[in-house]
Amino acid sequence: MQCVSRLLRATPLSSTRSFFSTPPCSVYPTKPAVRSFSVTSPHYKFVVPKRKQQVNMPSGDMTTFKGKPFDRASLESVMKRRLFYTPAFDIYGGVSGLYDYGPPGTALTNNIVDIWRKHFVLRENMLEVDTTMLTPHEVLKTSGHVDKFADWMCKDPKTGEIFRADHLVEEVLEARLKGNKEARGEKVEAEEEDPKKKKKKVKNIAAVKLDDALVTEIEEVLAKIDNYNGEELGQLMKKYDIKNPATNGELLPPVAFNLMFQTSIGPSSNMPGYLRPETAQGQFLNFAKLLDFNQQQMPFASASIGKSFRNEISPRAGLLRVREFLMAEIEHYVDPEGGKKHSRFEEVADIELELLDRNVQLSGKTTVKTTKIGEAVKTGLVDNETLGYFLARIQQFLLKIGADPKKIRFRQHMANEMAHYAADCWDAELLTSYGWIECVGCADRSAYDLTVHMKKTGAPLVVREPRKEPLKVEEWVCDIEKKKFGPKFKKDGKTVENAIEALTQDLREKLSLDLEKEGKIVIDVPGVGDGKVEVPKELITIEKRTRVENVREYTPNVIEPSFGIGRIVYALCEHTYWTREQDEARGVLSFPPTVAPTKALIVPLSSHSDFKPFVRTLSDKLQEAGVSTRVDDSGASIGKRYSRNDELGTPLGITIDFQSVKDNTFTLRDRDSTEQVRASLDDIVSAITSLVHGKEQWADVAARLPKFEGQEVDE
Amino acid sequence: MQCVSRLLRATPLSSTRSFFSTPPCSVYPTKPAVRSFSVTSPHYKFVVPKRKQQVNMPSGDMTTFKGKPFDRASLESVMKRRLFYTPAFDIYGGVSGLYDYGPPGTALTNNIVDIWRKHFVLRENMLEVDTTMLTPHEVLKTSGHVDKFADWMCKDPKTGEIFRADHLVEEVLEARLKGNKEARGEKVEAEEEDPKKKKKKVKNIAAVKLDDALVTEIEEVLAKIDNYNGEELGQLMKKYDIKNPATNGELLPPVAFNLMFQTSIGPSSNMPGYLRPETAQGQFLNFAKLLDFNQQQMPFASASIGKSFRNEISPRAGLLRVREFLMAEIEHYVDPEGGKKHSRFEEVADIELELLDRNVQLSGKTTVKTTKIGEAVKTGLVDNETLGYFLARIQQFLLKIGADPKKIRFRQHMANEMAHYAADCWDAELLTSYGWIECVGCADRSAYDLTVHMKKTGAPLVVREPRKEPLKVEEWVCDIEKKKFGPKFKKDGKTVENAIEALTQDLREKLSLDLEKEGKIVIDVPGVGDGKVEVPKELITIEKRTRVENVREYTPNVIEPSFGIGRIVYALCEHTYWTREQDEARGVLSFPPTVAPTKALIVPLSSHSDFKPFVRTLSDKLQEAGVSTRVDDSGASIGKRYSRNDELGTPLGITIDFQSVKDNTFTLRDRDSTEQVRASLDDIVSAITSLVHGKEQWADVAARLPKFEGQEVDE
Repeated sequence: MQCVSRLLRATPLSSTRSFFSTPPCSVYPTKPAVRSFSVTSPHYKFVVPKRKQQVNMPSGDMTTFKGKPFDRASLESVMKRRLFYTPAFDIYGGVSGLYDYGPPGTALTNNIVDIWRKHFVLRENMLEVDTTMLTPHEVLKTSGHVDKFADWMCKDPKTGEIFRADHLVEEVLEARLKGNKEARGEKVEAEEEDPKKKKKKVKNIAAVKLDDALVTEIEEVLAKIDNYNGEELGQLMKKYDIKNPATNGELLPPVAFNLMFQTSIGPSSNMPGYLRPETAQGQFLNFAKLLDFNQQQMPFASASIGKSFRNEISPRAGLLRVREFLMAEIEHYVDPEGGKKHSRFEEVADIELELLDRNVQLSGKTTVKTTKIGEAVKTGLVDNETLGYFLARIQQFLLKIGADPKKIRFRQHMANEMAHYAADCWDAELLTSYGWIECVGCADRSAYDLTVHMKKTGAPLVVREPRKEPLKVEEWVCDIEKKKFGPKFKKDGKTVENAIEALTQDLREKLSLDLEKEGKIVIDVPGVGDGKVEVPKELITIEKRTRVENVREYTPNVIEPSFGIGRIVYALCEHTYWTREQDEARGVLSFPPTVAPTKALIVPLSSHSDFKPFVRTLSDKLQEAGVSTRVDDSGASIGKRYSRNDELGTPLGITIDFQSVKDNTFTLRDRDSTEQVRASLDDIVSAITSLVHGKEQWADVAARLPKFEGQEVDE
Repeated sequence: MQCVSRLLRATPLSSTRSFFSTPPCSVYPTKPAVRSFSVTSPHYKFVVPKRKQQVNMPSGDMTTFKGKPFDRASLESVMKRRLFYTPAFDIYGGVSGLYDYGPPGTALTNNIVDIWRKHFVLRENMLEVDTTMLTPHEVLKTSGHVDKFADWMCKDPKTGEIFRADHLVEEVLEARLKGNKEARGEKVEAEEEDPKKKKKKVKNIAAVKLDDALVTEIEEVLAKIDNYNGEELGQLMKKYDIKNPATNGELLPPVAFNLMFQTSIGPSSNMPGYLRPETAQGQFLNFAKLLDFNQQQMPFASASIGKSFRNEISPRAGLLRVREFLMAEIEHYVDPEGGKKHSRFEEVADIELELLDRNVQLSGKTTVKTTKIGEAVKTGLVDNETLGYFLARIQQFLLKIGADPKKIRFRQHMANEMAHYAADCWDAELLTSYGWIECVGCADRSAYDLTVHMKKTGAPLVVREPRKEPLKVEEWVCDIEKKKFGPKFKKDGKTVENAIEALTQDLREKLSLDLEKEGKIVIDVPGVGDGKVEVPKELITIEKRTRVENVREYTPNVIEPSFGIGRIVYALCEHTYWTREQDEARGVLSFPPTVAPTKALIVPLSSHSDFKPFVRTLSDKLQEAGVSTRVDDSGASIGKRYSRNDELGTPLGITIDFQSVKDNTFTLRDRDSTEQVRASLDDIVSAITSLVHGKEQWADVAARLPKFEGQEVDE
C-alpha cells in the first residue's frame, strides 16, 4: 500500500509517501511509474502549495503535554538507555533500518496490540487470521507489487555507492538554495546537529549566488519532488548537473528498485517468493473461506497483526521508517450498493474529529476543522458511514492508549494521492518532532484486490445472496438447433456456436430483425471460411425473454484501516514524554497504566532482610492479578529509584518501610503527581488492579485511601 | 537449534530431529557434517535400539481422553472445515509447508501465547524482547548456521526433481522389505490411505523375496537412517541401487542444502542475509544490554515470541513440520559455578514427571519412570536445579492449557544427540497420532553461543561481579625498563615486548632462574634477527607477586526452554478432541475455557425481533468483560447450532428464549457435559467471566446456580 507520494514535502521524513493507506501503483495504468512517483496523473491540475512544511510541520515549537518545549534528544537518550529499542546487531556494527525492541518497548507494544485487539477485533467480532509472511511471486505479481512497488535509485559506477534519486536531488538543491542565501548575506537557519541522526550525504555547499529566476525554479522543483518519475529525475539530474556529492563522479540514470525482500521457497530455485510488504494480501486470498466461516453474512471484517517488510534504499528517521515493522490491518468487506452504511454509526456520530480536507490543502493551507463525524458524512466530506465509523473508532483507540488529543488529526488524501478506484482515503496523523506522521491509513480500496485475484485464479471471491425481490431481467436469447448445427458446420460447429454466444445484446436485437426480414443472419467468426458465417433461420431463433434472478452476486468493497504499530509506539512516547524539574531535570513517560510496560515498582527501603517476605508477597499477589511488577532493592535512594522508573513509564510505586513490617501497610505512589497514599496490602493490590484495568483513575484512589505525607522520600 | 537427529526412527515424522533443543552442528568439530547427521560422533558407542517405533510410537491404539479410538481424519476434517488452519495461497494452488491460521486457530494460538507469557515472562520477571527476523550473514556464520544448518538432497539431472536423500533411501528400502514380506506370504499391514496426506514418492514395489541376510542388513540401515552423512547416504544409494522411483533415472550424489531462506538487505547486493531459523541469536546478541537493564543482577532470563523460518526440502506431517512457524524461546542465564541452583526450585520439587532417561533408551526400551523432579535432580538424572525447575514449569504450562496428562513425557537426549558442550537436554514430548512429538526442547547450551559471538565481535558478553572475598592470585610478572628498551631494540622493540608479554607462567618461572644465574634471558621472537633474542637483566625483572582480584568475570551458561507453539496447538487439538455419539457422531474440542478461541455462543431461539435487544445486551456485557462471543441466530435448530460450536471448542452457550423476554433469565450450557443452568443476566455474565479466567470450574457453577431441565434442546 505504499506507493503514493505526498504532494507536499518537507522535514527529514518528507518522503512520507502514504505508508499504510494505498495499494501499489499497478493501479495507475497510464504510467509505468514506480511507487512514489506514480500519482501525478495528467488528469489532475491544481495549485501546488509552496512548500510541504506548511502541511507537514507543527506550527510553532513542539511542546510536551505539560506545555514545555519538547526535547527529542533527551527522549531518544532515555529510550536507548532504558532499552525501549536498540539498533539490531549492534555488536556486529548494526544494519540500518533494523531495530530490536528491548523489554519496555516489547511490553509497550504488546499492551498496545492487546488494547487494539479488544477495541477492534473483540468489539466488532472481526475474524482475525494469521497468514504467512513468505509469499510466492505470482500473488504479488497479481496484486501489482512486483511491477510497481519500487523506488528510484542511481548508482555511482566507480564507487558502487547507491543513492535514492529523489533524496539526492532534494538534498543537493536544498544545499544550493542555502548557499545562495549565504552569498546574499541572508540569515540561514542553523542546521540541527544531532550526532545520532544519520548524516546527510550532502555537506554544505560553498556560498554561491543564484539568479532569482533559478531560485524560483528550484523551489518549484522541490515542491514537487515526490511527484517525479525516474526519467524525470534523470532529466533533473542532467539539467542541474547533480553528481555524487562526495566524489563529483557521474551517476548512472535512475532505475527502479523493488522494495520487497526476495527469496526462494523450497530446494529448487523455481519458486521465487517475497516477504510480504503488507498483511492485506493474505487476508484477501482467504476471503471466500472467511465469508463461509461467517455463515455467508455481510458485512464482516477480517483482521491481522504481524510483521511486514520493506527493503528501503536508505532508511532514516529512526523508528519511523524501518525495514521490518509490525502492522495491524483490518479489511472490512461491505456491499458497494446501499451507500456503505454501518449499523453502529449512530454510536459514534457525535464524536468530533480534527479534519484537514483536500480542498483546504489545495488552497495551500493546513487549517483543520473540528467536525462531528456524523456531520462530515452527511455533507459528503467523508465518503460514507463505514469509512466515517472507522475514523471515529481510530481516534477512540489513539486516545485510549494515551495519545495527546491536541496532536491528532485526520488528513484527507489529495485526489492525485489516491488510487483511481478509491472512493476516499484519510490518514490519522500524529504530531511529532518530525512533523505530522501518518500512523494509520484508512482507505476505501473498492473491489480492486478481490477482483484482480479472482480474475487471475478463477476463485469466486464474491458474495452470493438471495434477493428479497427476485430481479427480472429482459434479454435477447439466441437458441440454436443443435441437431442441425453439427451437420452443417462440421468441425467449425463449436466455433460458430461460441461466436453466437458472445454476441452483445445490441447486436442480438439488430440480428433478430435481420432474421425476420432475410431469414438468415451473417456474423463474424474469425478463422472460419472468410471470417463471415451465414446462419439460416432453421438453425437459430432470437427472442426477447424475461429471466428471473433470485440470487445477487457481487464483489464486496473493502474499507481498510491499516495501523503502523511501530510508528504509533514512537509517537506515543513523544506525546507522553516530559521532564520533571528538580535538582536536575528528569524524564518521565506518562503512559496510561493500561499501556505502561511495567505497572508497579516495588521498593523496599533498604535491602534489609525484614523486607524480603513483603517484597515476595506483593510480587506474588500482583502477579496473580496479572499485573507486571519490577523490584528495585538496589542501594540507591528511594527518590532515585522512582526516577529511574519514571523514565520507564511505570505508573505506580509501592514503598516497603519499617512501618510496613509492623502493621502490613504500604505507601502507593502515583508517577505523574508523586502523590502518595497509605493502605493495607489488600487495599493496595486492589487499587493497583483497578487502575491497571482502567476502572479507576488516580484521583479516585487518592480520594478513597488515606493520604501519606510523613516520611517524604527524597525526590 | 535444529541439527541433531534422533538416533531412533519411525513414523511419518521419523525425521523429527530435535527441532527445538539444540544448536547448529557447527559445534561438532570432528565432522564436516550437516544438520541431521552430524551427531554420530565416533566417540560414542552404544546399542542401537532395533527400530525407532519403540521409542516414538504409542503403545497400542491412540485413544481420546474419553477412552474411545482417536480418528485423525475426523479431527483434520473438522479443523479444515472450521478454518482452524488452511493451506496458504490455496486459490493459487498452495505452497507446501505454508499454512494460514483462520479465526479459531489464530485465537487459540493467541490465548496459548497469552498464558505462556503470564506463566513464564510475568511470573519470573523475564526480559521479553522482540528482535528482527532479517539477520545478516555474519551473525549466522558465527553461530554456525551458515555452514551446518542443512539437509542432504539429491537431484535427478534429467527431470529436475529433488529428493531429500535420507527420506528417499528410507522409503525405497521400506518398500523392498514390504515386497519381501509379500513374496514370502507374510501378513503385510495395510498402508493407511489418507487422501489428504502427501503421497509417498515410492509406490509399492513388486513382491520380491530377499535373502535373510539382506533383510537384516536393511533393517540395520533403517535403524540408523538419521545418522548417515551425505557421503554415506550416497554410498547406500549406490550399494542398494536407489534411483528416482518414478523414472528409474540415475540421481546425482547428495549435496548439502542449507535450510535458511536467503535474501539481500539494502539496495546493493553486498549484504546477504537470512530469515532467522530461531529467535535465540537475537537474544544472545543483546546479552550485555539486557544484563545492564537488569542492573547487573544474575541470574535472569530473556524471552522472545516470534516467527522463525526453515526451508524444508519436502515438508510433511501437516502442521508439525512447516516452513514458517511460531516459537517462544527463553534464554535463562546462569552462573556456571555453584551447581546452577534455582531460588524457586523448592516450589516445584514435589512435582512428578514422566521421565524417559537415556539409559532406558540405550537398552532399547521406552519405559517411563514417574519421578519427582526434586528426586531426579538429587540423583543426578536431571543435571541441575535450573534445568529441573524449567522441566516442571513446562509440564505445569502444558497441563494449564489442557494437554492430556497421560500424553506428556520428558525424553532425555542420548549422549550423541546433544552438542558436545551440553550438560543435559530433555524434550517435552506430546503423544499424537503421529507418535511422540517433540514440542518443547529444554537444553543446557552452556556458554557456547555467548562465547562465539564474543570472540567474533570483541563485545564483552560476560558478567562482572564483585567478589565477596577478594581473590589472591600468585603470578610471575615481567617488568620492562622501557627507557632502555627502545634504544636497544629500535624498531623491533614492540615485537620483543609482545613476545615477553605472551610468555607462560611456567616459562617465566624458568626464565627468572636464568636471569638470576646468567644475568640475561634468551627468548623466541620470530621475525626478529635469527628468531632468538637476548634480553639482559638491565632491561627486565621477573618476580613472583600476589595480585588481588576484586572482580570476577565469567561467561554465563544458558538454559534454554524452546517452545514450538504450532506443534503444541496441533497436539492440543488431538488431546482435546472426541466425538459425541448421538444420531450421528459429532466432534467436540474440549479446550479449557481459558484457551478456547471463542468463550460463549449466544443463541436466540429464533430470529424473532424480541430477542435482538437481549443478544445485544449479552454481547456488550461480555465484551466489556473481555469475553469473546459469537452469535448464531441462523435458522438451524438450537442443538445443531450448539454442535457447530462444539467443533469450535466453544465451552459455553447461552440460550435466549421466550422466558428470557419475560423475566430476563437465560440458560447457560456447558459444552462437555451438556448440563444447563438458568439464572439472571448478571449471574450468567459473572459465571462466564469466572469460568473464562479459570477461577471456577463448571462443577462450581452448576452447584450454585439452579439446574435447567425444562425445554431440553434437541441434541
